[in-house]
Amino acid sequence: MNVDKYFSLYERERIKIDEKLAKALKNRKPSSLYEPGNYILEGSGKRLRPLLVLFSAKAVGLNFNKVYNAALAVEMLHNFTLVHDDIMDNADKRRGRLTLHKKYDTNTAILVGDSLLSIAYEFLLKDAKGSRVHEIIKTFNKGLIEVCEGQSLDKEFEIKSEVTLNEYLRMITKKTAALAEMCCTIGGQLGNCSKEEIKILANFGKKIGIAFQIQDDLLDISGTTAELGKNIGGDLIEGKKTFLFIKALEKANLQQKRNLFKIVKNKGISPSEINFYKSLYEELGVLDDAKKEIIKYTKSALKGLGNLKNEDDKNLFTWLANSLIKRNK
Amino acid sequence: MNVDKYFSLYERERIKIDEKLAKALKNRKPSSLYEPGNYILEGSGKRLRPLLVLFSAKAVGLNFNKVYNAALAVEMLHNFTLVHDDIMDNADKRRGRLTLHKKYDTNTAILVGDSLLSIAYEFLLKDAKGSRVHEIIKTFNKGLIEVCEGQSLDKEFEIKSEVTLNEYLRMITKKTAALAEMCCTIGGQLGNCSKEEIKILANFGKKIGIAFQIQDDLLDISGTTAELGKNIGGDLIEGKKTFLFIKALEKANLQQKRNLFKIVKNKGISPSEINFYKSLYEELGVLDDAKKEIIKYTKSALKGLGNLKNEDDKNLFTWLANSLIKRNK
Repeated sequence: MNVDKYFSLYERERIKIDEKLAKALKNRKPSSLYEPGNYILEGSGKRLRPLLVLFSAKAVGLNFNKVYNAALAVEMLHNFTLVHDDIMDNADKRRGRLTLHKKYDTNTAILVGDSLLSIAYEFLLKDAKGSRVHEIIKTFNKGLIEVCEGQSLDKEFEIKSEVTLNEYLRMITKKTAALAEMCCTIGGQLGNCSKEEIKILANFGKKIGIAFQIQDDLLDISGTTAELGKNIGGDLIEGKKTFLFIKALEKANLQQKRNLFKIVKNKGISPSEINFYKSLYEELGVLDDAKKEIIKYTKSALKGLGNLKNEDDKNLFTWLANSLIKRNK
Repeated sequence: MNVDKYFSLYERERIKIDEKLAKALKNRKPSSLYEPGNYILEGSGKRLRPLLVLFSAKAVGLNFNKVYNAALAVEMLHNFTLVHDDIMDNADKRRGRLTLHKKYDTNTAILVGDSLLSIAYEFLLKDAKGSRVHEIIKTFNKGLIEVCEGQSLDKEFEIKSEVTLNEYLRMITKKTAALAEMCCTIGGQLGNCSKEEIKILANFGKKIGIAFQIQDDLLDISGTTAELGKNIGGDLIEGKKTFLFIKALEKANLQQKRNLFKIVKNKGISPSEINFYKSLYEELGVLDDAKKEIIKYTKSALKGLGNLKNEDDKNLFTWLANSLIKRNK
């Protein structure tokens, strides 16, 4: 597999998406709305979701040029969720920069989030044309509904004392995986592909999405501040019921359980306690459990790719899945 | 004109919309998201926007049954804006009940607003089918974008020391009238009507929307708490640059100007000062100015209705416009 070729393709298109995003809100008025919107869109990112749209469209024979607007749309939808989630989580930093509500204020951030979503539909409509427009908008909208439901479940977890691994998986499937699934589905639908092709692409998006979220949980404790662009241990500080926490609780002895329940009782820990809990997670082997789970879902994502028409597209998706496993931010 | 007939029709359909809204989110999970959503939708209201969809569809020959979902969609979109605006305005009450963020909390209200918008698109897609689906979604989305921009302009006004009447009109055209215009346009498009018919309906919606907002400004000071379901003088307390305030500033002498600028300087007044400013408004005759402006825009809304195919529909719109002038809430 020509790894360099795929990496170059990803980087080239990621930069293109960055450039297009930076232009998307230019010259729109009022500036009180679109300047803060631009602040969010010009922050760098992996741009995984728009790239999933591009690669899925390519896999069914469609030129990138036909789907850039849809790709921008999913990134805008994603950024809408980030802006509103950051308010709800009271997060200070995102991608190494101040979150929108810290840079401006909460009211601005609420409205900018709303507006990003509205512009997302506008961009989607530029590419969604022809006989399948209803289906495409419906797919996009279903992704949006699931993201809202997933975020609501995530907030529920904050007040629930115990969360099972199944409940966790259901939550991240809605909160993270549904959007990745939607990106791949839309890419296929824009290319007017068959139901069978959609199935393969949707499965890739969904499973890669689950793997992605578990890895996010993992990176929160195993990553570095410099690479993540935010402080590590944030999930512990907020008392989030992550994969690591839930798995740790499953495996803990009585004393370890007591320590873990302290996180719940106190609704999070102080930064000085991060190392203690990191050691506990390591002792219980849950970082390795997370790695195994990530690999499991990544493998499951690749299933069915053999049925794609083009060998090169199969390799591109395989490279993408493998490079996500190795990511450090 | 058979006023009773139109009133009965409005009431019958308003109640139907109420019933359908009360069912719209039932049996959806998670309840942490949809129960608060239901709280908002089950609050009573004029349901003007969904009725505009129904009446416009009727005017181009379409049965109500074909557009109920679209009618619910515009009401959900409207409620999404109310929920988020109430957070931004720190409003306590709405339609005689606690606002969502007061009944629950701000995070819930942000997410419920987002979710109402997502469900709005879902409902719209149920009725928007066939060859004009792209056009219909685009119209709906344009309405959403304008509402966001209008709210942003409204928030801008809070920190601007002077706002002209033209700026005010541009703001309410986006914040309020665009949505009413959208409702009428969509009703027409769902009925697959001609460009000429859309023009008449869109004009009706837009102008009635402007009249509606100026009357809202007027009712805020001339209405009663019991009828409005909220305290009167709220705009003064918040220091909003309403039609009344801007017009008063235009007409005031030096001493009166000083008193009006106090509202701006102090970012609002205390409830005990409401009567003083109400008297000042009366002295300057701006309540009458507002009434004249409302009549002007209502007349302008009715222009062109003569070109509608059916005399009965023309009368229905005329009745609606006139009854809005007489409303007390």
